[in-house]
Amino acid sequence: MTAVTVWNEYRHEREGGRAAEVYPDGIHATIAEFLDERGFDVRTATLDEPEHGLTEEVLEGTDVLTWWGHEAHDEVRDEVVERVRERVLDGMGLVVLHSGHFSKIFRRLMGTTCDLKWRDEGETERVWTVEPGHPIADGVAESFEVPETEMYGERFDVPAPETLVFASWFEGGEVFRSGCCYRRGAGRVFYFRPGHETYPVYHQPEIQQVVANAVSWAGPVDGPTPSFGRSADPPERE
Amino acid sequence: MTAVTVWNEYRHEREGGRAAEVYPDGIHATIAEFLDERGFDVRTATLDEPEHGLTEEVLEGTDVLTWWGHEAHDEVRDEVVERVRERVLDGMGLVVLHSGHFSKIFRRLMGTTCDLKWRDEGETERVWTVEPGHPIADGVAESFEVPETEMYGERFDVPAPETLVFASWFEGGEVFRSGCCYRRGAGRVFYFRPGHETYPVYHQPEIQQVVANAVSWAGPVDGPTPSFGRSADPPERE
Amino acid sequence: MTAVTVWNEYRHEREGGRAAEVYPDGIHATIAEFLDERGFDVRTATLDEPEHGLTEEVLEGTDVLTWWGHEAHDEVRDEVVERVRERVLDGMGLVVLHSGHFSKIFRRLMGTTCDLKWRDEGETERVWTVEPGHPIADGVAESFEVPETEMYGERFDVPAPETLVFASWFEGGEVFRSGCCYRRGAGRVFYFRPGHETYPVYHQPEIQQVVANAVSWAGPVDGPTPSFGRSADPPERE
Amino acid sequence: MTAVTVWNEYRHEREGGRAAEVYPDGIHATIAEFLDERGFDVRTATLDEPEHGLTEEVLEGTDVLTWWGHEAHDEVRDEVVERVRERVLDGMGLVVLHSGHFSKIFRRLMGTTCDLKWRDEGETERVWTVEPGHPIADGVAESFEVPETEMYGERFDVPAPETLVFASWFEGGEVFRSGCCYRRGAGRVFYFRPGHETYPVYHQPEIQQVVANAVSWAGPVDGPTPSFGRSADPPERE
Repeated sequence: MTAVTVWNEYRHEREGGRAAEVYPDGIHATIAEFLDERGFDVRTATLDEPEHGLTEEVLEGTDVLTWWGHEAHDEVRDEVVERVRERVLDGMGLVVLHSGHFSKIFRRLMGTTCDLKWRDEGETERVWTVEPGHPIADGVAESFEVPETEMYGERFDVPAPETLVFASWFEGGEVFRSGCCYRRGAGRVFYFRPGHETYPVYHQPEIQQVVANAVSWAGPVDGPTPSFGRSADPPERE
Repeated sequence: MTAVTVWNEYRHEREGGRAAEVYPDGIHATIAEFLDERGFDVRTATLDEPEHGLTEEVLEGTDVLTWWGHEAHDEVRDEVVERVRERVLDGMGLVVLHSGHFSKIFRRLMGTTCDLKWRDEGETERVWTVEPGHPIADGVAESFEVPETEMYGERFDVPAPETLVFASWFEGGEVFRSGCCYRRGAGRVFYFRPGHETYPVYHQPEIQQVVANAVSWAGPVDGPTPSFGRSADPPERE
Repeated sequence: MTAVTVWNEYRHEREGGRAAEVYPDGIHATIAEFLDERGFDVRTATLDEPEHGLTEEVLEGTDVLTWWGHEAHDEVRDEVVERVRERVLDGMGLVVLHSGHFSKIFRRLMGTTCDLKWRDEGETERVWTVEPGHPIADGVAESFEVPETEMYGERFDVPAPETLVFASWFEGGEVFRSGCCYRRGAGRVFYFRPGHETYPVYHQPEIQQVVANAVSWAGPVDGPTPSFGRSADPPERE
Repeated sequence: MTAVTVWNEYRHEREGGRAAEVYPDGIHATIAEFLDERGFDVRTATLDEPEHGLTEEVLEGTDVLTWWGHEAHDEVRDEVVERVRERVLDGMGLVVLHSGHFSKIFRRLMGTTCDLKWRDEGETERVWTVEPGHPIADGVAESFEVPETEMYGERFDVPAPETLVFASWFEGGEVFRSGCCYRRGAGRVFYFRPGHETYPVYHQPEIQQVVANAVSWAGPVDGPTPSFGRSADPPERE
């Protein structure tokens, strides 16, 4: 059973307003609930816990980490970012959600600015499945709408995804590479655009299906641990 | 100087109607003209010429071939398709335009159906530059509109492009991978979506810029000619 | 449970000599046996059966097809090749083994010659795992040897693999991209180099592990079936 | 004319011994000389110059930067690394040579450890051209030898290259992805394995050809400068 840690900044929802209404127990609670219902072994962690809830022990027991952050990316401590990065390179999956594009961990793994265009006017997004044969498209429709959401538009300054699974259309005239697969070290990374703190995107079944698929896909593989550094003898003489 | 052969089916434009008005001398004449103005060494070839104008000699002297076809894909003879394919594998560039997605040569090089969605109601297309650092984006804006055009929508059944340079937004709600780079053998292939027989798309400066860039990019390289088959002696003992 | 059809040309082994000794019941029997032991639902099919054993019904019930052929590629009927291709585009996995690089089905899906260098002098091959985090590397060592085998060397004239999982070193001085992943339509294709009719390669546990992993990886996904062709109404107005 | 800055750590060569004999004026002098002979506009910069010779002004005037470092990667100041990274994302090309795989700038752009195996026993390397149609293979043979060199072996812990142009074979039994293309932001990055401080690798004509090709390929393109951040109005209403 895949062990998932759902990480959330958990600030907007405690500040009251629309975020508190849509996600009264935090975005992480909503995500954890739908993953739990689908049979994953789920725990949560948030920014204001000690070590942001991401101790060595927690990460060691995590197969896939999901990441949501927005207004407090800079408060995530560098040593925790590095710890997460090392676990990803070692094989842990990472699913980065929406405004997590600007998280330290995603930018660190991509090497680029991860910048984009945005406009928050409640426009309709239509998500298109570009690769219907990919595991993350399992049970997903050819296209589906997010009725009201923030727009993200190209240029999305990331390395070209190894596989592009979804692309989004926005009412106002933009497109976006919405579902992007990467491999870093032995770990797999999936960026999924939809999601926001004040729109009920994570309550939408299609979105839940994609996030669950991404978690399944990103789980670690029992492949070889490469040896690095000085290789004393040519292998054929061993 | 890059030697370009502009191939056109050249049927719609001779049937009168809107196509004859927009492209009175054929789409190939329009394309040839703007390539000639940009300094390429251009000739044209059309379906109803002997061997479709694509003799061994013509292909031998062609660095990059551009392809426009629509209603008569099936009339292109298989031996000519194979001849073009061999030249591409040997290093000739191929720029496939709009409805050329269903040409025998493109389908043969891709291995897939190359099918897509379409709707011809004169909708607006907005082309977004996804890879601003790619040579085919040279001198192109971040986004530009084709005011009235036929819609092509995903799923576009092609192998994932090695580089995706442009993506399109359509008024009616679809997105499309509009500028797709491939390598087949020693040759480079670029598929570019915009273009149609009854809309003046090839008269639009932005489109002309992209097609010219693609021709420059797709030109052959003086790389090694691989040897294939039985390799009698281990190379280090030669 | 993944339903696998193991296809084999099955000519060398019936001609006597070394192939008959190494694979007395055919290469397909050996492959079917180790896949069966690993829990797959396996059947076999061979060239000289009616319709090469690949009827509509058989293919309809096949999740993943493995392919071994060598001296009789040309005897595979074009309509069967097209039938297999359509099933791959529809989602069936295809695992192409060794000399299958020159099969009609692989060349048709790749669009290129699929040519390479070869030398059959019983050299040692060392297979290196280039992507240790890929599912096809599950349980595989960082590198392993095939003690005596035929050499295949670059240039391998295929489109660049979407993921390169293994690369081989040969005693005589060549390298080869030995484990290549592709997506065609909704189907996944894996090419795996090792294997031969007169060397006991398919009796080797490491090879069996990779083939089994590839079969698991290539299985179909329950993704959306795209609609193609005329899309009458803009989707958001439906 | 492409403006190239050849950067070198320039420590080994000043410590005497073999490095001083092979590259008496520094590796940068050798590289600068062969690039100058091929018509590039070349300057050099080294670690011990103020700001490592990489001031804002120098970088602003640089189209392509080549990078050689080995024993003093840690002495490169972080603000200079960040300055180089920003220029790459802005469009400057970067050609990373041999032990530069462990430079701060390459690791920062890749997001991974960039670790590998090595053994320095003067083994023969055979470089194979995997993509003969790529511009970096222009004028290069199908394969060529580096007679005596340090071995680098897989697993090379980098993101999968967008294009793999060369792969190396080593006498002792290893393989390596030797010529790797990446795009980061608007800039292009090429990693080329051959080269060492005590072997005369950069005096070898084949190596010089590849480095010169890489510099040509990596040069900036006059593409659009994307706008990022808040996009106030839907573009089609502007």
